[in-house]
Amino acid sequence: MGRWEPNAGDRLREAALELFHEQGYDRTTVEEIAARAGLTERTFFRYYTDKREVLFAGAAALQESIVASIKAAPASTTPLDAADAAFAGTSEMFEARRALARKRHELILAHRELQERELIKLASLGAAIAETVHGRGIGRPAASLIGDTAMAIFMNAFVRWVTDTKKHDLAHHMRATYADLRLATA
Amino acid sequence: MGRWEPNAGDRLREAALELFHEQGYDRTTVEEIAARAGLTERTFFRYYTDKREVLFAGAAALQESIVASIKAAPASTTPLDAADAAFAGTSEMFEARRALARKRHELILAHRELQERELIKLASLGAAIAETVHGRGIGRPAASLIGDTAMAIFMNAFVRWVTDTKKHDLAHHMRATYADLRLATA
Repeated sequence: MGRWEPNAGDRLREAALELFHEQGYDRTTVEEIAARAGLTERTFFRYYTDKREVLFAGAAALQESIVASIKAAPASTTPLDAADAAFAGTSEMFEARRALARKRHELILAHRELQERELIKLASLGAAIAETVHGRGIGRPAASLIGDTAMAIFMNAFVRWVTDTKKHDLAHHMRATYADLRLATA
Repeated sequence: MGRWEPNAGDRLREAALELFHEQGYDRTTVEEIAARAGLTERTFFRYYTDKREVLFAGAAALQESIVASIKAAPASTTPLDAADAAFAGTSEMFEARRALARKRHELILAHRELQERELIKLASLGAAIAETVHGRGIGRPAASLIGDTAMAIFMNAFVRWVTDTKKHDLAHHMRATYADLRLATA
């Protein structure tokens, strides 16, 4: 093998999550992940540096999408509203991966090293939002607070979404969480 | 030595921060930290498991103080106000350690492994606040959001405080940051 494989990145990610779920994160090897996906280890390493990275492959694309959406928001939109709408705009993408997102969420909760990596990625997304908001003319201290607040809303909305037995979408939970924040600060 | 040493924990912490600052975190050994503090390595290990832990020794006491203060707040105080007041109440303690706090802050920014540990500690403080707020009769989803929002305010106020050339205290920056949050959500 070693040739181009359609959706190899996604297939490896799904295979990894299945195996982590079935036999545990610690016991799963890259070799097994590649085999489950019907690919070689060599192909695996063309996509990911290690098995942990498989779980965070979506972070860069999410950040790009959020930043682009905030930049494109009308000038009349408040920065926090723009960030909120940006996350709500990823709702369909998340909806298509609900089952995987749930497995991933449980896995991360159960492993401290994964939690640490997750927190770093989320902090870096918050910093990117702050930078983008600053680019819209907001001073750095306020922009940084807005970045962290947007992340607090998103992270809470995400947990509500991923554990929601009624299956409302992320946009629904973003609205509800943002409303809760307004109540809490009122 | 090995006998009881007055303020050994604090002395080791100060010595460690001085050495990290002077010669770099990576190059500093536990032996050197103990020597600078006028103590033995054995004493060091009675207080801290490793040199990284020296930087996070205050986390448990901070959490205890914040939780106790939220529990003691009048029932009429909103949960976020109670959390805000709890952090403002630590202002004097932080003021007494401004120079150390600044050195620590710069050090953490410069080392990813320290950032990861810091983020985990802050997340755990946010979870403790959420749990305490839940104990005051707030549902879990809203309590969790309030915990994370309180942390966003505190972390931003802390950075403003630790980098403030005018030397306003933490309570001042908590007020200003909380006011910024109200503006951002208005």
